[in-house]
Amino acid sequence: MNIHSERFKKVYNSEIAKIEKRLDKLLKGKEPQSLYEPCSYILRGGGKRLRPFLVLISAKIVGGNFKDVYNAALAVELIHNFTLAHDDIMDNSDIRRGRLTLHRKYDINTAILTGDSLIALAYENLLKDCNDNSKKVVAAFTRGIIEVCEGQSLDKDFETRNNISIADYKKMIYKKTAALLKMCCSVGAQLGGASNERLRALSNYGKFLGIAFQIQDDLLDIMAEEREFGKTIGNDLIEGKKTYLFLRALEKAKKEDKVDLLRVIAKKGISRNKIKKYKNLYIKLDVLNDAEREIVKYTKLARKSLSSLPKGEEKKIMYWLANVLITRSK
Amino acid sequence: MNIHSERFKKVYNSEIAKIEKRLDKLLKGKEPQSLYEPCSYILRGGGKRLRPFLVLISAKIVGGNFKDVYNAALAVELIHNFTLAHDDIMDNSDIRRGRLTLHRKYDINTAILTGDSLIALAYENLLKDCNDNSKKVVAAFTRGIIEVCEGQSLDKDFETRNNISIADYKKMIYKKTAALLKMCCSVGAQLGGASNERLRALSNYGKFLGIAFQIQDDLLDIMAEEREFGKTIGNDLIEGKKTYLFLRALEKAKKEDKVDLLRVIAKKGISRNKIKKYKNLYIKLDVLNDAEREIVKYTKLARKSLSSLPKGEEKKIMYWLANVLITRSK
Repeated sequence: MNIHSERFKKVYNSEIAKIEKRLDKLLKGKEPQSLYEPCSYILRGGGKRLRPFLVLISAKIVGGNFKDVYNAALAVELIHNFTLAHDDIMDNSDIRRGRLTLHRKYDINTAILTGDSLIALAYENLLKDCNDNSKKVVAAFTRGIIEVCEGQSLDKDFETRNNISIADYKKMIYKKTAALLKMCCSVGAQLGGASNERLRALSNYGKFLGIAFQIQDDLLDIMAEEREFGKTIGNDLIEGKKTYLFLRALEKAKKEDKVDLLRVIAKKGISRNKIKKYKNLYIKLDVLNDAEREIVKYTKLARKSLSSLPKGEEKKIMYWLANVLITRSK
Repeated sequence: MNIHSERFKKVYNSEIAKIEKRLDKLLKGKEPQSLYEPCSYILRGGGKRLRPFLVLISAKIVGGNFKDVYNAALAVELIHNFTLAHDDIMDNSDIRRGRLTLHRKYDINTAILTGDSLIALAYENLLKDCNDNSKKVVAAFTRGIIEVCEGQSLDKDFETRNNISIADYKKMIYKKTAALLKMCCSVGAQLGGASNERLRALSNYGKFLGIAFQIQDDLLDIMAEEREFGKTIGNDLIEGKKTYLFLRALEKAKKEDKVDLLRVIAKKGISRNKIKKYKNLYIKLDVLNDAEREIVKYTKLARKSLSSLPKGEEKKIMYWLANVLITRSK
C-alpha cells in the first residue's frame, strides 16, 4: 500500500457518494411504481460502485472531467445491477449484501422485468453523456453487455460440463466479469476523448483488473473471515462450482485426492461439514498460492497496460485501485 | 380493400422474405451455442414481421432505401422477440405460434438470458445502420423499450387492480403495444432522413396503428375462427384479462349482467364452458361493435397522420397495411 492511499480513498469515496446520490434521485417519482420501486430497491443495495468509478477515472486520465461522465457512470452501474437481478434468479439466491434478492423481495416476474428495464434505462443515461462519439460509445457499451450474457451462459454450461480446463475457466471469467470492467474503462476513455492507443491501454487495464478480481473472488470464498465477507465461507464448494481453486486442484491432485475432487463434481457439491477437509486439500496442493500468483500476475498486467499513459494523480489512483481490489477482504 | 392490394402484398412478402433470410443468418455459428441456439429458436418462430416492415416503409416514404435499414429492421424484430421470450415466462404460456415457448423448450433461466441477449444484439444491429444520427436513433429505440417495460408492468398491475377504466386500458396498450410500433416508424423515419414534421407524422401513424392493432387483438380473442386463429377462443375471458371488451361491458352492464362481470374479476377468470355465455353478454351489450368503432377510429387516425406525407406507392402501402391489420383473422 502506498503512502497516498488515504488521499486516493478520499477521492474514491467522495465520487462514490455523488454516484449514490444520483442513483437515489434517478427514478424518484417515476410511474408505474410497480416497475420503478423494484428498480430503486436493487439500486439501493450498495456495493463497491467500482464500475462507475472506472468510468470516471478512465475519462479523467485522458483529459476528460468527472462531471461530463456521471450519467455514463450511472449507466454501467445500472447494467451491473441488471446482471445481479437476473443472475440471482438463475442461481436461486435468496440474499445479496445482507438483503433479500429482488425476486425474493418481490417475485420472479418482477425481477425479470426490472432487469430488462435497467438495461434500457442504462442506455438512456449513457446517451446523455454522448455527442458525436455516440456510435462508438454505444457500440462498446453493447459489446460489454453481449459478452456478459455470453459469460453467464458459459458459466451455466460449466454446471453440467465435466471437462473444464483452466483456459476454459479464464475465457468464462473474461466474459462474465472482466468484459464489463473493460467496457467501463473503454466508455470512460472514449467519452474523455482518448486516442486509440490510450483507449486500448485503458481497456486492457479493465480487462486484466477483471480477471484478477474474479480469481480473488474465488479465493475469498474459502479464505475470507465469515463476518467480514458477509457470505457463507466455502459456498462455491457447497455448490460444486468449478472455480480457479477447484480446477487447479483437480489439475494437480493425484490418487485419492483426485478421487475426492471428482466426487465433488459427481455429487454436484459437498455438505457444509466437509469444507474444512477440502480447504486442507487446497492447502496441501498449494492451490491457494497458485491463485495468489495468478492474481498478482493479472494485477501487474493491469498496471503495465497503463505504461503509455501520462504520470500523475489519476494513474496513481488506478494503481492504488488495482492494489485495493486484490487485498480486499470482501 | 383496394384494387392494388395484391401488389402491396407482394412488396410486403418479398421484403419479409429478405428479413427472414437475414434473421436466419444472423447468429449462425456464434458461440456459445447454449446462448445462440435458443436465440435462433425463438427468431425462427415466424410471425407477421410487421415491426421490421414498419422500419423499412417508414424509411422509404421519406426518401430512404430499404437496403440501408435492414439491420435496424432486424433490430426491432429482436426487441419484439425479447418481449415474447420474457412475457411468455411471466404469463406462464406453453405454446406460441404452434411451438413450445422458449422457457418450455429449454428452461426459465435460458429464456431469461436469451431475452437479455436479444436486447443487446438488437442494439448491435441497430448501430450498423446509424451514422451521425446515432444519438437520436438510439434514444428513440431506447424510449420504445422503456415504454414496453412500463406497459408490461401496467399489464401485470391490471391482474390485481379492480378499478381499471377504459382510459387506463388505453394508456396500458399504448405502452405495451403501440409504443413499439411507434418506435419502429420513428427509427425508420430518422434513418431515412425525415424532417421533424414527417418524423412526428410517422410516429403517430405507428402509435395509432398500435392501438387499433391491440383492440383488434382483444376482439379476435372472442370472434376469431379457432382453426385460423391458432389459439383457444375466449382465452382472455378464461384468464380474467381486463380487455377492451371486458372493461367496456363492465361500463355498460346493469344489474345481473354487472354481477356476472364482477364475478369474472373476483374469480380471476371463467371456466371454458362459460365462454358462450359471456360472448352472448358482449353481443347483448353491443361491445363488439364498440370495439369495431374504436378500431376504425384509430385506424383513421393512423391514416390521417400521414396527410403531410407525399402521395405515392409507399403511402398507399401504409394505408393498405392499416387496413390489413384491422381485417386480419389472426
